[in-house]
Amino acid sequence: MEQAMTLMEAYKKASYPLIGHGRRNVQVLKEALAQWDDEQDSDMYGKGELIENFEVRMARLLGKETAVFFPSGTMAQQIALRIWCDEKGIKKVGYHPLSHLEIHEKDGMKELHHLEPILLADEERPVLLKDLLGLKEDIACLLLELPQREIGGQLPEYAELEAMSAFCRERGIKLHLDGARLFEILPYYRKSAKEVCSLFDSVYISFYKGIGGIAGAVLAGERHFTEESKIWKRRHGGDLISLYPYIIAADYYMERRLPHMEKYYREAKELAELYNGCHAMKTIPEVPVSNMFHVHTTVKKEQLEPILIAIANETGIGLTQSVRDKGDEGSYFEVNHGDRYGLAPKESVIEAFRLLDRKLQR
Amino acid sequence: MEQAMTLMEAYKKASYPLIGHGRRNVQVLKEALAQWDDEQDSDMYGKGELIENFEVRMARLLGKETAVFFPSGTMAQQIALRIWCDEKGIKKVGYHPLSHLEIHEKDGMKELHHLEPILLADEERPVLLKDLLGLKEDIACLLLELPQREIGGQLPEYAELEAMSAFCRERGIKLHLDGARLFEILPYYRKSAKEVCSLFDSVYISFYKGIGGIAGAVLAGERHFTEESKIWKRRHGGDLISLYPYIIAADYYMERRLPHMEKYYREAKELAELYNGCHAMKTIPEVPVSNMFHVHTTVKKEQLEPILIAIANETGIGLTQSVRDKGDEGSYFEVNHGDRYGLAPKESVIEAFRLLDRKLQR
Repeated sequence: MEQAMTLMEAYKKASYPLIGHGRRNVQVLKEALAQWDDEQDSDMYGKGELIENFEVRMARLLGKETAVFFPSGTMAQQIALRIWCDEKGIKKVGYHPLSHLEIHEKDGMKELHHLEPILLADEERPVLLKDLLGLKEDIACLLLELPQREIGGQLPEYAELEAMSAFCRERGIKLHLDGARLFEILPYYRKSAKEVCSLFDSVYISFYKGIGGIAGAVLAGERHFTEESKIWKRRHGGDLISLYPYIIAADYYMERRLPHMEKYYREAKELAELYNGCHAMKTIPEVPVSNMFHVHTTVKKEQLEPILIAIANETGIGLTQSVRDKGDEGSYFEVNHGDRYGLAPKESVIEAFRLLDRKLQR
Repeated sequence: MEQAMTLMEAYKKASYPLIGHGRRNVQVLKEALAQWDDEQDSDMYGKGELIENFEVRMARLLGKETAVFFPSGTMAQQIALRIWCDEKGIKKVGYHPLSHLEIHEKDGMKELHHLEPILLADEERPVLLKDLLGLKEDIACLLLELPQREIGGQLPEYAELEAMSAFCRERGIKLHLDGARLFEILPYYRKSAKEVCSLFDSVYISFYKGIGGIAGAVLAGERHFTEESKIWKRRHGGDLISLYPYIIAADYYMERRLPHMEKYYREAKELAELYNGCHAMKTIPEVPVSNMFHVHTTVKKEQLEPILIAIANETGIGLTQSVRDKGDEGSYFEVNHGDRYGLAPKESVIEAFRLLDRKLQR
């Protein structure tokens, strides 16, 4: 008997998968590397023009004194929080219950740094000023993830963000930005990276989300902070002899993708509207505030998957490669928006959504 | 006034620099990448055929059940020691006073894992069985670095190594191999990697020393150990979405360099003899037991450097790019041997050493 096709297989086979920029394959690195002279020297343990020039440009872009390249955001952020906690002599940090540190890092912050999280807000909304006003414990640092990925990429209003920043400054709480998707929110806020970062004491950005690089991150802040972060980077085993494969890709794809963040945002809103027009589906946020959103449906995962497979096969449009189970409440999936959506013929997209709506109504 | 040339500059300008394999530049990665199909999918957070196939092959080569690719040895080794300490409920590990963990990692093992080192042997020789017999404290784990890099790459005799392994097994002490240069010692021991590794419970190897890759490491052992190491890898921030740039290079250069380890070893002995024939110079070890050794001289750093610069300029032979100060005792430098030595014309090498000997006698 023939094995039924999985959603992942159908998505990969689809002529027009709609998520992100494209496949993560070796070509992504080859293309970026091709821009560089063969004789270009590697960075060496954080030194050398290749890494130092990039760090200077990142610091400038983010409006901070200095920036340090890290192999991962997991490493960069634990270190940022550790530095602020050591400085304050308090081992508590505030963040959202669905923060990356809380759910994706195997408790690295707790196991390696012995920091204690104070969970703010709830799983339906981002952290707001009222959560800070309600704080019953002293925290050394507050981490805000903008946008809050695990709740569909929601954002506080900018005035709310400014109020939280002012609150933290007044109370001597360090404010750290989990800006894994910082560039993706700038069109909604209508602010520069520098303006947003000016509200924070330290900033992390990632190079393989909206930018579409290979891996890697930058941590930015004042010199005393980033110098301290380099010591911890060495301790974590992140001060690699060569980080240039990631830096070269970060550099290359930033240049190509930063100018399109407005387009990704606009198209994400367009796509969300298509989902919201379908039976039993709604997006969170209803109107996206970045290039991402979540699609929730009362239809269960085991019913939704065959529908998405059929759509991929019949229209060539791949809507998602995986669906997450919400039990009796149905299911959901994440959409993040990049170069791919623009490559799909409009009529095929419209046809896919017509089919989706019809199949959901059955 | 013209600035005098530094030793580093003279070495880089030399027609035949003798250390290692070649320049660490972008070409090293381009060459390895060129072997791969553009469509080859990236690894994804430690999964995918690219990383998994490589890990299986490494496990086989080392004769262990499983292997895990890490971005760095610093990370891999701290994690190995942590796992063994947790298993034994003892926070003490034994190693050499000049271990990488003790002098190059900003105390990561202590600061992140709160493990305490018991320093064995002294700064003149490697760890021996007598050091274990003299142990006054319970240790969870013993780390042996083969060869011991910071003392010129010295090794215990193989029978001594077997005796230490037997001692540890009997006492329930886990034995970990810092095998950053494991392949480089096999010609001297006349053993396979598998044979040496069979004496150890866990093994780390590096891909950018004798192998000449970009960065990266492998940690190998039984499945329960490597599975636990993956959790800690995530916690450390080392579970990158894509490690393939390092894996592809490791794979490519292993294939090219492993067959030459015997040659590097033989040539290192030849080169050491040339140094030992010079006035006021001696190598440690006197006869190398791997591809590396240290060159010690009673001549001070500030006198030695101009001599090495003159030799590079006059003969085109770059002997080293840096010299370390030993104060009144003179100075020393490290030699590690790879593809480059074989590229230098013999007569230029001989001429360089004739000149070196003459200049040292003045």
